[in-house]
Amino acid sequence: MTVIALLQIDPTVGDIKGNAERISLAASIAHEHGATLAVTPELAMSGYPPRDLLTHSGFVKRCLEEVHDLDVNLPLIVGCPIPPEMERTRPGNGAVRVIPDRPTRVVTQKQLLPTYDVFDEERYFHPDTKPGILRVVDGQSIGVTICEDAWQHTGLVPNDYPVDPIEQLASFSMEGEALILTVNLSSSPYHIRKQGTRAEVAISAARTLNHPFLLCNQVGGNDDLIFDGRSIVAWPDGEIVQAPAWTEGVMLIDTDARTARFIKIDGRDTIKLRICTPPLELPNREEDLLEAVTIGLRDYCTKSGLSSVVLGMSGGIDSAVTAAIAARALGSENVIGISMPSRHSSDHSISDANITAKALGIELLSMPIESMHNPAESILLQEIQNGNPIAAENLQSRLRGLLVMGVANARNAMAMATGNKSELAMGYCTLYGDMAGGYAPLGDVWKTEVYALARAINNEALTAGRIPPISDSTLNKPPSAELAPNQVDEDALPPYEVLDEILRLHMEEGLSGEAIAGFTGKGEAMVADLLTRFGRNEHKRWQMAPSPRVSGRAFGQGWRQPLAAKKE
Amino acid sequence: MTVIALLQIDPTVGDIKGNAERISLAASIAHEHGATLAVTPELAMSGYPPRDLLTHSGFVKRCLEEVHDLDVNLPLIVGCPIPPEMERTRPGNGAVRVIPDRPTRVVTQKQLLPTYDVFDEERYFHPDTKPGILRVVDGQSIGVTICEDAWQHTGLVPNDYPVDPIEQLASFSMEGEALILTVNLSSSPYHIRKQGTRAEVAISAARTLNHPFLLCNQVGGNDDLIFDGRSIVAWPDGEIVQAPAWTEGVMLIDTDARTARFIKIDGRDTIKLRICTPPLELPNREEDLLEAVTIGLRDYCTKSGLSSVVLGMSGGIDSAVTAAIAARALGSENVIGISMPSRHSSDHSISDANITAKALGIELLSMPIESMHNPAESILLQEIQNGNPIAAENLQSRLRGLLVMGVANARNAMAMATGNKSELAMGYCTLYGDMAGGYAPLGDVWKTEVYALARAINNEALTAGRIPPISDSTLNKPPSAELAPNQVDEDALPPYEVLDEILRLHMEEGLSGEAIAGFTGKGEAMVADLLTRFGRNEHKRWQMAPSPRVSGRAFGQGWRQPLAAKKE
Repeated sequence: MTVIALLQIDPTVGDIKGNAERISLAASIAHEHGATLAVTPELAMSGYPPRDLLTHSGFVKRCLEEVHDLDVNLPLIVGCPIPPEMERTRPGNGAVRVIPDRPTRVVTQKQLLPTYDVFDEERYFHPDTKPGILRVVDGQSIGVTICEDAWQHTGLVPNDYPVDPIEQLASFSMEGEALILTVNLSSSPYHIRKQGTRAEVAISAARTLNHPFLLCNQVGGNDDLIFDGRSIVAWPDGEIVQAPAWTEGVMLIDTDARTARFIKIDGRDTIKLRICTPPLELPNREEDLLEAVTIGLRDYCTKSGLSSVVLGMSGGIDSAVTAAIAARALGSENVIGISMPSRHSSDHSISDANITAKALGIELLSMPIESMHNPAESILLQEIQNGNPIAAENLQSRLRGLLVMGVANARNAMAMATGNKSELAMGYCTLYGDMAGGYAPLGDVWKTEVYALARAINNEALTAGRIPPISDSTLNKPPSAELAPNQVDEDALPPYEVLDEILRLHMEEGLSGEAIAGFTGKGEAMVADLLTRFGRNEHKRWQMAPSPRVSGRAFGQGWRQPLAAKKE
Repeated sequence: MTVIALLQIDPTVGDIKGNAERISLAASIAHEHGATLAVTPELAMSGYPPRDLLTHSGFVKRCLEEVHDLDVNLPLIVGCPIPPEMERTRPGNGAVRVIPDRPTRVVTQKQLLPTYDVFDEERYFHPDTKPGILRVVDGQSIGVTICEDAWQHTGLVPNDYPVDPIEQLASFSMEGEALILTVNLSSSPYHIRKQGTRAEVAISAARTLNHPFLLCNQVGGNDDLIFDGRSIVAWPDGEIVQAPAWTEGVMLIDTDARTARFIKIDGRDTIKLRICTPPLELPNREEDLLEAVTIGLRDYCTKSGLSSVVLGMSGGIDSAVTAAIAARALGSENVIGISMPSRHSSDHSISDANITAKALGIELLSMPIESMHNPAESILLQEIQNGNPIAAENLQSRLRGLLVMGVANARNAMAMATGNKSELAMGYCTLYGDMAGGYAPLGDVWKTEVYALARAINNEALTAGRIPPISDSTLNKPPSAELAPNQVDEDALPPYEVLDEILRLHMEEGLSGEAIAGFTGKGEAMVADLLTRFGRNEHKRWQMAPSPRVSGRAFGQGWRQPLAAKKE
């Protein structure tokens, strides 16, 4: 065996036929380029994460049937859910061998089922207990592992598993017949702090196994999960080679000669890949995040059958960055902005939105809300006069949400929510107002990182000789919801650099208020007050639009705070 | 040992101090009435389900510290999360022994961790591997199990567990020292098809163990889960006794004399309980469901610090039933209805809402939407004229949502969404319109069951000599969203008896379209069309308000369909 192909593809959850076609296409490219074995990502046949589709036994069966029906010209290892052998048992997360003219066979099923953060695999799968060994055509054997199976070995998991499949394979290889290499089928999501982690896992496995370790990763977005690709190969001496991020293609590796190429599926461009010693050159953090949220939005729309999006544009940084992401994801002709000035809007709110729309080349509708604002206030006059003044502020935001949804419905487009993670965390946003939308591209991006995205967007435009879409005015004005005269965010919240750090330590590191106060040097009372306000906003967060998860600890399904609970 | 007390209490998730006080209060009642041992529900100290609070190590530690600090006069077994003994390990779901003047001790931790439907316990807990045995004060020993630990024995679980803790205890009791009884700390949620199931579990355990089996269950609502109480005791010969549902109290059982009483915590009324042979007399299904959704709403509001609710009242059955539930839950003085007629509203929509409000004694505001409807249409004129006409229908619903939220915000009240499970399943509802609200009391109730609830509500009023709140007109008119002239639901949907059965078989029984067509005798094409439309509505459902889960298979966290996935 010389050339192995890692099929770095973008499957769609639930689209079994489409995924089979994608696998066949990539496998045929691999065959044309002389590969002798091809490997797909984890659960390529169902797409990852298949979630409750797995509870329909018919779905799991059809996935495996489709593997049997694959028409390929070379041996292939396909990630696929496996119907349970016994009743009252869950399916397996399997790797299936397909060899032309021979029966298909389940090689192994995943042993370590991640059940933390975005993962829920113990809920859906039954674990295997033995390592996967596959005798390939020329009589030599390889090890087969699935994603998390390789992670216990480096300890990069929050809770220890009782077994280590890499050690199992190493023992097998020592005691029995030697394995020539080990493959790993992965659907390993991107997050902003994961840079370099997968290389660590691959190198550690290759060292222990004393043979090359080849990890094939999914690319693209499914639901709220984002996969960056970056399939990777490591040798026992620590050399590595990595496939490009954010693009579908076939990574071809000659493990003996130590050469590697990547054939893009679109256009069939060939990229020569450099074998190197770690550390890998890390990508620019902001540019990488920009790619992540762009691909998240693109795949969310295209996989849902939506081609265009609508958003409110306030002249603020969140909506400007969201518009730019949408133009990157779907093309500027498929993005509709709406400027909706109210009596509290500043002049720059309109002019800045215009600058952004013009620079992006997107349509910008103008819909002043005053003609609705007056009668709405009249209807609610008594309530507003006698009640909590927040009702009046929210009214404007909801009138805007209603117009955005009206345009989206009329055009069969999706509304986008423009809120960022910081304001969503604090509830500094209006439910059914600016929170309205089918997808929130910035919902898992801290406000300070929104500025970083804006710079990356402007740099990209400058490099391409275009006008930067985020104006200096938008970048430099103090953030404001503009729902009351002269209102700025800092009236209600600490500066975002302070807020983001406190919230990140709480959400992502799990620190208590006391620990955060000690760590940051901020006052304990201020931190405690913030976290109390944070804790009171589960109601809003349970109804927020899904967001591309880029932080490793997003709201929504992965942040299961009790709803109605009293917090101490 | 003669008298055992089961403390059927209603803890609040996250309110450690409050839960400790509740436990102490119930334990003191038990002591006053001569109990020699008291038992709480599962995780009484944290409340169930604590969800991601368990990922904060400080929270888990504080729960156990609070157990140490409990001031009680009799031996007590308390359900409490247990900090892990090793690093990189999850906490346990434990039972802790508290005996006056002796150190507290962890007796056992739950072995079987349900991870299906509403349960997520493998995500949060590390399982124990051995049965719980507790030597009580007078030198005799008892078995201690936690909820699901007793369920494998009857096979009433979707997937088999590898061990059966009831068999473990039976073996222990046979081989070693005999156990005199076994207790079970439960937080076993209500659902409409669960009637009699817990009795089966208790009888089966008592038979195998050959001694009494005493199950103490949580009562009340936490988040979207509802607990009915109904603590139960079974003897080996099959006799059983059950505590009342939907009320906090102390169940006192003399297991030798076979007598049982229930002391209500509120008012200290004593109810003598009847020991009987199964089957238990089942409660009226509709009355029981009415109690479930009422207590769900009541606890959701009171535990969140909310005292009043606001809802739109259309004269239709959903809003009438929701208003009646709210009046039962919070008192009629805390319910504000709003009638919001539009140009398409029929006369009866206003008069029927008036009848219901008057019968319930709730405030009814009138806010015709026409003065907002016209300018909104003017702003969106071009979009509506050139686009999808659904935009115009949704506009009305969203104007109403905006007014409901305006009143709710002004009064610091919670808006309620009035939609039922059938229309939410089909997407026959408006996101940010009638779906707006912090809680949807009927969100897990099929439309056909909403009618049953209406009858139960009217019967209750008649029995009490009051006017039935749901008018004949509301009960008998064809369901209509009234968003277009002469619109009725059956224009877009099959009759609800047909729809509900098809959806129930799909969602709750997991049947495919083909199987449903065969089973119901409905056309395959019609079923397939319905399920396709069903499958396209995950977008809406991911943003719906939480609902009291009464069906065993609700939307939201328990129905994790992929969002952006193509369905076949």
